Amino acid sequence: MTASDRSRNFVEACIEAIGAAHVLTDAHDTAPFLTDWRKRYHGQTCAVVLPGTTEQVAKVVQLAREYRFPIVPQGGNTGHSGGATPDASGTQVVISLRRLNRIRDVDPLNNTITVEAGVILADIQARAEQEQRLFALSLAAEGSCTIGGNLSTNAGGTAVLRYGNTRELCLGLEVVTPQGEIWDGLRGLRKDNTGYDLRDLYIGAEGTLGIITAAVMKLHPAPVARVTALAALASPQAALDFLANAQQYAGPLLTGFELMSDFSLHLVTTHFPQMRYPFSKKHGQTVLLELSDSESEEHGRALFERLMEHAMKQGLVEDAVVAENLSQSRAFWNLREHIPLAQAAEGLNIKHDIAVPISRIGHFIEATDALIAQAIPGVRMVTFGHLGDGNLHYNVQAPEGVDPENFLAEFQAPVNALVYESVHAHRGSISAEHGVGQLKVAEAMHYKSPLEVRLMRALKTAFDPENLMNPAKVLPDVRAPGAPRLSS
Amino acid sequence: MTASDRSRNFVEACIEAIGAAHVLTDAHDTAPFLTDWRKRYHGQTCAVVLPGTTEQVAKVVQLAREYRFPIVPQGGNTGHSGGATPDASGTQVVISLRRLNRIRDVDPLNNTITVEAGVILADIQARAEQEQRLFALSLAAEGSCTIGGNLSTNAGGTAVLRYGNTRELCLGLEVVTPQGEIWDGLRGLRKDNTGYDLRDLYIGAEGTLGIITAAVMKLHPAPVARVTALAALASPQAALDFLANAQQYAGPLLTGFELMSDFSLHLVTTHFPQMRYPFSKKHGQTVLLELSDSESEEHGRALFERLMEHAMKQGLVEDAVVAENLSQSRAFWNLREHIPLAQAAEGLNIKHDIAVPISRIGHFIEATDALIAQAIPGVRMVTFGHLGDGNLHYNVQAPEGVDPENFLAEFQAPVNALVYESVHAHRGSISAEHGVGQLKVAEAMHYKSPLEVRLMRALKTAFDPENLMNPAKVLPDVRAPGAPRLSS
Repeated sequence: MTASDRSRNFVEACIEAIGAAHVLTDAHDTAPFLTDWRKRYHGQTCAVVLPGTTEQVAKVVQLAREYRFPIVPQGGNTGHSGGATPDASGTQVVISLRRLNRIRDVDPLNNTITVEAGVILADIQARAEQEQRLFALSLAAEGSCTIGGNLSTNAGGTAVLRYGNTRELCLGLEVVTPQGEIWDGLRGLRKDNTGYDLRDLYIGAEGTLGIITAAVMKLHPAPVARVTALAALASPQAALDFLANAQQYAGPLLTGFELMSDFSLHLVTTHFPQMRYPFSKKHGQTVLLELSDSESEEHGRALFERLMEHAMKQGLVEDAVVAENLSQSRAFWNLREHIPLAQAAEGLNIKHDIAVPISRIGHFIEATDALIAQAIPGVRMVTFGHLGDGNLHYNVQAPEGVDPENFLAEFQAPVNALVYESVHAHRGSISAEHGVGQLKVAEAMHYKSPLEVRLMRALKTAFDPENLMNPAKVLPDVRAPGAPRLSS
Repeated sequence: MTASDRSRNFVEACIEAIGAAHVLTDAHDTAPFLTDWRKRYHGQTCAVVLPGTTEQVAKVVQLAREYRFPIVPQGGNTGHSGGATPDASGTQVVISLRRLNRIRDVDPLNNTITVEAGVILADIQARAEQEQRLFALSLAAEGSCTIGGNLSTNAGGTAVLRYGNTRELCLGLEVVTPQGEIWDGLRGLRKDNTGYDLRDLYIGAEGTLGIITAAVMKLHPAPVARVTALAALASPQAALDFLANAQQYAGPLLTGFELMSDFSLHLVTTHFPQMRYPFSKKHGQTVLLELSDSESEEHGRALFERLMEHAMKQGLVEDAVVAENLSQSRAFWNLREHIPLAQAAEGLNIKHDIAVPISRIGHFIEATDALIAQAIPGVRMVTFGHLGDGNLHYNVQAPEGVDPENFLAEFQAPVNALVYESVHAHRGSISAEHGVGQLKVAEAMHYKSPLEVRLMRALKTAFDPENLMNPAKVLPDVRAPGAPRLSS
């Protein structure tokens, strides 16, 4: 059988299994599935297949295995690391989970919702709200990303401080294995100790061990009020001490603690002049705090006011404002959410999504800023992110007047190396919430111990000995030259 | 080499590696390590070895592998499922982690503590308190169990509702593999998405995939006050509706929600007459609530009083009392904590540690009680536990006047079968927080799908191909007759 016969036969078998309308081969139809969200990767495919049920996913996996086409699972295609984009060979099949978009069950007394992989994150939030519940996962792409992708990348977002990552929000999974079998692990239990933790192995595996087709996710009681505040401080270290204060005062009510450097906010107010920085003078750092209150808005506001008074007396906080209403609260969040857009308006920069132990953030920023400034005089640092989780978007912008394209061409590689070395020295992570995908495979391997890489490889081989599932993502392709050896 | 030569050479090599004082072979010395806490299992050993460092653990594992002695890791030996007791062959070596009892680091700003596997749970709690932090894991054996055992069994306890199981409290691990290598996964990060989740695979694996030697555990801000209350209700279903109320009112401040049936408390007040049930008449169910407040005791008490008033108006709660001081609070917890002792005083019963989705608890108890009462007229149900987690200690006591030993001999097997079938029908777990050990291997296998058993087996084979680590725990021994086949 020639390669094109094989491809034709596979496509025909898929059409027979799930219908011609759901097997895309025309270049015009497949194009949206072949480029990643950041437009860094452009792949080819033998077909984009859109099964409508878990059984159809299993059937398509069986066919892909039979015809030996590697599989690239895809959700909302909003990933930042190219994890859902096929390679350029044209021999990989994209399985889009978008049609698995049913909410199967909501159980308010169990505080759970059972959803298929293709359900859009915002739709889960909305359904929870109907039941006076909160689905706590929240991130920029929530209007288009899918829960299957969130699970496969263990997405983070703005409420991790209180509710954890996607991993902590999941109780059970349904997974199609690389052999095309269906594992029903859709348990809605808070406690279950009857064997190995398969669930957490599939979460964050970026589709390399199987395809997540459905999940039981945790809900929380809906807070009665959300209160937002801004605090101005001198340094990241002051912000850190202030975080400890805020956690002492607010305990688990504190749901957000976002850091924004002076230059990050300068970019926002420059490119979006309608946005207003609420303090009369500049401050080195600004923190956005959010509190989710189960009593009342007044209670939350009073708590924040006590906290700010205490922190200002201590000299930690230089100025502070508690939002007086929803629209002011919205304006505070707008400042934070416009940083990525303001960066884009300023021109390309070198992005990093890193985490270090929270206690080391101040030292990390100080030490790494100094190294970069030494290497590139005049460089401008766009430092912001989820300080409460130790997670920074630590981005490096060209000096004023320098062409961003030239800057990236010259400095991207050395700056990445410098930042990742510093992260490593601080026992941090080079990919806090964006995963490995194809973007960071080499770096991830470089910073892991040979033993850890071997253990990861052993898992991959145990679950997917034919290397059918999303090859060359997370781990280097076993067939690629220079890939780590299988055993010690 | 004869078997006894092999054993003698192994012991000598261990002595050379870690010193004669830490290699026990005398029957008097080894006895405490060879019987489980409930005295159900009595094993034999070639030696009990007590390494003092991670490197020594690795060395002993290498020796055990070289001389082909399977390894049984042991912590505080407080497990309920025989997971740390060797078999009767005398060919297994017990590696006790007790001497790995150093607290390596406390980082209050990162809210983490780094501890070795042999540190006693209560010692971690005490160290956290010194730093005005809370280590949230709390369970009956905390004065003697070790964190390594807590991690290996993913222990639950009384604060899971708010803080999660041991799994949710762990950020990083150090593990000695079955090959005697040391994996340094001691990360103190809230976000890290750079590969497969090895940490969660070792947690709850009961020492069958490797030996946990140290861990980075999460701390929380210490609450300012703990407030306790009792509420009297008619039925488990009412308790369930009340739980939803309590979560709405108290949000994440609610840290405990324990159910105690009428007969459970009757046993307590019968066998411990100094204990007082605080309500003037009997009620079908009593709930103990605990709230951890970050503001003040007054705030917590006021919150509970509003909740109780609301629930009594709704007719959910029949009577309620909020503890007025620490000693009353202690008295409420004493009622709950004396249930196991009162059971023991009443005579042996048939114990189950089960979980179902919280929303199904009422139906589960009603349906299963009816089945058991039909099978054994006059039977008395001791039902209590962590209602907020869907986790019940669902114990079956002989009818009044029936000899407990005879009762167990006749009814243990059929009652277990009946309860587990009912748990399974409610999509629950037959081992919520006590693990599988050797006690529940057959049942765990029975209720898992063949696919799930195969996936578990694939993990075991990938990590421990020589079946050296705690064989026949969690999964049946591969060499045992009737063990599931390795591949499909």
